[in-house]
Amino acid sequence: MESLGVVKHILLAKFKADITPERTEDLIKGYANLVTLVEPLKSFQWGEDVSVENQQQGFTHVFECTFDNIEGRDAYLAHPTHVEFANQILPAMDKFIIIDYKPMRFI
Amino acid sequence: MESLGVVKHILLAKFKADITPERTEDLIKGYANLVTLVEPLKSFQWGEDVSVENQQQGFTHVFECTFDNIEGRDAYLAHPTHVEFANQILPAMDKFIIIDYKPMRFI
Repeated sequence: MESLGVVKHILLAKFKADITPERTEDLIKGYANLVTLVEPLKSFQWGEDVSVENQQQGFTHVFECTFDNIEGRDAYLAHPTHVEFANQILPAMDKFIIIDYKPMRFI
Repeated sequence: MESLGVVKHILLAKFKADITPERTEDLIKGYANLVTLVEPLKSFQWGEDVSVENQQQGFTHVFECTFDNIEGRDAYLAHPTHVEFANQILPAMDKFIIIDYKPMRFI
């Protein structure tokens, strides 16, 4: 087993019905922009649900942040720019799940 | 905006309390082994929850499969070896979410 040596931070989101597509897009752009503002955030990717198994339980978006290590994740969570952004995006959501993991692969 | 040109398949899992660590490990090895058995499954990674925000809603494991495209994801879902494995692992879970997305990045 091989650790990829990074920490992934997964956010599953369902936006509220009254959040317009334009507002959603602005929020996603704001999220992506954190890469340029919060040094420990090394990369950001996202996408809309394209599932066909109907096990996504209403979640519509996946966001994935990558950090070099746990210290980077901790620094990101505590960073004022992240905190300010979280206070914008989370209230736009009907529900969300946040789960972090250190990805491993079998060699 | 740039598509990474792949499809990611995310499974969040909470294993049942009576599933032993040994059984969990066997199931994870079986999952990883699908890469060698199901051609469209291009890579597999997984990890245990290391969150500190307490928003993981009881989920304990993240599994991520990568496919080249939607056709690869569809072929994986229909593949008898995958179906047989899903019938082993899913009953071991208290709850799970499966969500697929096509990751994009802002350039």
